[in-house]
Amino acid sequence: MRKLIGLGIVGLLLAGCCPFTRVCPIHEQTTRGKLRHVVLFKFKADAKPEQIKAVEDGFRALPAKVGGVRYFEWGTDVSPEKLSDGFTHCFLVTFDTAAARDAYLPHPAHKAFVETLKPILDKVLVVDYVARK
Amino acid sequence: MRKLIGLGIVGLLLAGCCPFTRVCPIHEQTTRGKLRHVVLFKFKADAKPEQIKAVEDGFRALPAKVGGVRYFEWGTDVSPEKLSDGFTHCFLVTFDTAAARDAYLPHPAHKAFVETLKPILDKVLVVDYVARK
Repeated sequence: MRKLIGLGIVGLLLAGCCPFTRVCPIHEQTTRGKLRHVVLFKFKADAKPEQIKAVEDGFRALPAKVGGVRYFEWGTDVSPEKLSDGFTHCFLVTFDTAAARDAYLPHPAHKAFVETLKPILDKVLVVDYVARK
Repeated sequence: MRKLIGLGIVGLLLAGCCPFTRVCPIHEQTTRGKLRHVVLFKFKADAKPEQIKAVEDGFRALPAKVGGVRYFEWGTDVSPEKLSDGFTHCFLVTFDTAAARDAYLPHPAHKAFVETLKPILDKVLVVDYVARK
């Protein structure tokens, strides 16, 4: 039994997954080399809150529909610097490879999302980069 | 001896650090709730490569000088979408709290960096957000 527990712990370590931890600087550093896809939206002045919410939810639903997304997060601007040029929303989509990003962009679910976005979109800005330190 | 090794492994797990892993989706998800500081630069057309390199190195040196930065990464645009509006550089600075960001912005080292940046800067865009899924 003790051997089994020991093997289980070693297995967890070798599997590259550590379920007891909450924040690990080492792991955050392993995001280096990943392809980050940064998307900023500025919405039209007459965009309704429920329309913006639908876009937020639509974007959040994309990773499950398209696949190939390693990690997804988003948020709304809280910078005190006043350098956001009207952009209020930032979405950070992380892919393992450029090939995954290349499959994501023309995917029907992504294209359908873009169509729902257009009526309320004022400006979009996209920058992709390979993360380095 | 066996007990010591066992305690060591348990200690590593409880310490929130798993040195044998390379990529862990669980850990990446724990970046939720962190304050992300997204900084985009577009340089002037006549900016020289060595001037741009000095800005990149200057930004990379900031976390060690200022403190309070949980994680730092950057990269140059590789998006095929042509929606970068001329921005070529993206820096992603992660703080644990808004207070850490508020201490970073007026820090003398940050201000000195901004002065070295100005001569070759065409445009800057900054968006901060609290990461959510």
